[in-house]
Amino acid sequence: MEAIYLDNNASTQVDAEVVHAMLPFFLNQFGNPSSMHDSGAAASAAIKTARRQLQALTGAKFDHEIAFTSGGTESVNTAILSGLEMDPGRTEIVTSAVEHPAALTLCAHLEKTRGVKVHRIPVDHHGRLDLDAYRTALTHRVAIVSIMWANNETGTIFPVERLAEMAKQVGALFHADAVQAVGKQTMDLKSTAIDMLSLSAHKLHGPKGVGALYIKRDAPFEALVRGGHQERGRRAGTENTPGIVGLGKAAELALERMDEENKRVKSLRDRLERGLLERIPGTFVTGDPLARLSNTTNVAFDRIAGEAIQFVLNRHGIACSSGSACTSGSSVQSHVLTAMNIRQVTPLGAVRFSFSRYNRDEDVDRVLELIPGIVAQLRDGAAPVSRGQAK
Amino acid sequence: MEAIYLDNNASTQVDAEVVHAMLPFFLNQFGNPSSMHDSGAAASAAIKTARRQLQALTGAKFDHEIAFTSGGTESVNTAILSGLEMDPGRTEIVTSAVEHPAALTLCAHLEKTRGVKVHRIPVDHHGRLDLDAYRTALTHRVAIVSIMWANNETGTIFPVERLAEMAKQVGALFHADAVQAVGKQTMDLKSTAIDMLSLSAHKLHGPKGVGALYIKRDAPFEALVRGGHQERGRRAGTENTPGIVGLGKAAELALERMDEENKRVKSLRDRLERGLLERIPGTFVTGDPLARLSNTTNVAFDRIAGEAIQFVLNRHGIACSSGSACTSGSSVQSHVLTAMNIRQVTPLGAVRFSFSRYNRDEDVDRVLELIPGIVAQLRDGAAPVSRGQAK
Repeated sequence: MEAIYLDNNASTQVDAEVVHAMLPFFLNQFGNPSSMHDSGAAASAAIKTARRQLQALTGAKFDHEIAFTSGGTESVNTAILSGLEMDPGRTEIVTSAVEHPAALTLCAHLEKTRGVKVHRIPVDHHGRLDLDAYRTALTHRVAIVSIMWANNETGTIFPVERLAEMAKQVGALFHADAVQAVGKQTMDLKSTAIDMLSLSAHKLHGPKGVGALYIKRDAPFEALVRGGHQERGRRAGTENTPGIVGLGKAAELALERMDEENKRVKSLRDRLERGLLERIPGTFVTGDPLARLSNTTNVAFDRIAGEAIQFVLNRHGIACSSGSACTSGSSVQSHVLTAMNIRQVTPLGAVRFSFSRYNRDEDVDRVLELIPGIVAQLRDGAAPVSRGQAK
Repeated sequence: MEAIYLDNNASTQVDAEVVHAMLPFFLNQFGNPSSMHDSGAAASAAIKTARRQLQALTGAKFDHEIAFTSGGTESVNTAILSGLEMDPGRTEIVTSAVEHPAALTLCAHLEKTRGVKVHRIPVDHHGRLDLDAYRTALTHRVAIVSIMWANNETGTIFPVERLAEMAKQVGALFHADAVQAVGKQTMDLKSTAIDMLSLSAHKLHGPKGVGALYIKRDAPFEALVRGGHQERGRRAGTENTPGIVGLGKAAELALERMDEENKRVKSLRDRLERGLLERIPGTFVTGDPLARLSNTTNVAFDRIAGEAIQFVLNRHGIACSSGSACTSGSSVQSHVLTAMNIRQVTPLGAVRFSFSRYNRDEDVDRVLELIPGIVAQLRDGAAPVSRGQAK
């Protein structure tokens, strides 16, 4: 049984070209990039190349607007905490009800420990941000707005460029959590009012443990991690040379292939969606039908308990997800679907299928072949799969 | 010209076995360790193995006392900031004058922005901690002590187990920055009063971008990076599976080989030291002659300006360091040697040679062959090396 991986919003396979680019920095150019000798200089030069690859992918005006971090969560934390430091007169944060835990958990902590006021802008039944509520929350008391570019669970895309313009009107900083969008959406940060943007390598076929924070030149900034002078004092600690090189290469590949891959994964995703809706009654797709990542579908099935479908599919070698990986295992229902008022409509099981460059037509065929039977069995309350079938 | 790498306190070559252990987690078991499917479970199991490998190396009582981070600087920052949060009545930090910038820069920032009082315990001419000053600084106002196990520039070892006992007497938390000591010194944390301990993979032939913080069970703790529930809520963000696996493997190898390698690198180091002292007048070794890492020598040469020797050696393919990598490039004199009152004795150039498992007798031969001439030329004010000789 060949494994089928449809959980690319949780993490992606590292591209073989990326691994190939990283290897010399484990075994040969392993010098500390801050060292003055040739081994250090080689590492330092490679980091400079990666910074330019990220600049190209994001459309940053300057390569030094990219600061490398250990990943998306660190970047998001850094942006929000930095934003709060800038002006003692601004003590409020605006975010959305459907952000990643990297933002929501930190905001809840700041609310509790520092008396920060947090506005969590609601979304409608399609996961679209309530723009009136957003406008109302934006005052001169707001230090920073942190809103995701694309939602990890449903793929819904928020109009971050417009939201950033609105934040600018009241002098608030704007941070975009673009962890799910980078590599999938065309970006030209230099022509936007976005002050900071978070991204993570392992969502775009790069390695885990590395990410970046875009910090617009002249935007006020306070480091989270302090020590050496690395990353112009914006992120201390010996640079993760192989990881940064891998992120740079992944960014280069994503930029080269974006249009073609988006088209291809969208056709796979659409065929899966159509197939499920046609074959299975009581099924619907969540998220904004007009603004959604090409690779993501979140399908809700009536009268099925939480993670049952995911569990059975896994026994057939198919990896997908209910909720995000960062909240799974915690047995809470998806805060994203709850915010979309979907849980209240009917008890249902929502499954996220997220595609990547490595998915093939056969993957869709196999899921379409399996799911109708699984759903029927689960709805009947029958044993989901006989032992003989299980791997 | 074959390169000779003698800057292993700055960073080390990743062991080929470590890279081999990491590769499957880029290309095959790339699932998010928090995901519920088999791909996530495989990653999660590998992290558990790595945690046990670290437990074995450090002598922690429980594997869950190890929390993985992005490296030494993050670990040190986390420990100090966490310590400060524990008791509003305790607002002082005790550290030493010769700590790594990861501690000193953060402490200076906290002093400036939060009015924290920082005691920087001085050292003597051999780099030994002033125990009377330490005793005096320890009061019930101290929240946390952060002291390095071994100094990165001179290799001087501090008696951290004793220092931790003394901190315990006044109810202060004790954090050991063991970035340079882990893998070189035998540790049995369960039998010490050390509450937290920082370590970094790339100092022990593991990859850059990953490290760990030991947190004794029941020690109070506040996370620095918040979000998902990873690492039992002590460090949010998708786990760096390949990096963590690499750190675990590097820990396993270090433990297996520690005694033999310490013996071997000590004999190389001692031969280099003796050779330099014999061949070159006006030369002495800095650091505690009775308590020093086996792999490190910091040799001071009279009447030579700062980084000149390092520069010329680099042109001959030999990588070493003056000061630490994390402060190099900043053109300040070593704060460690300044604290040891060595700069004041005479203007001199100090060079750190730090060995690893990959160094050979020939490396020592080559350095001993080259340095006497370089020092003589530099002292004569002659051109350090002719263009024909440079690589």
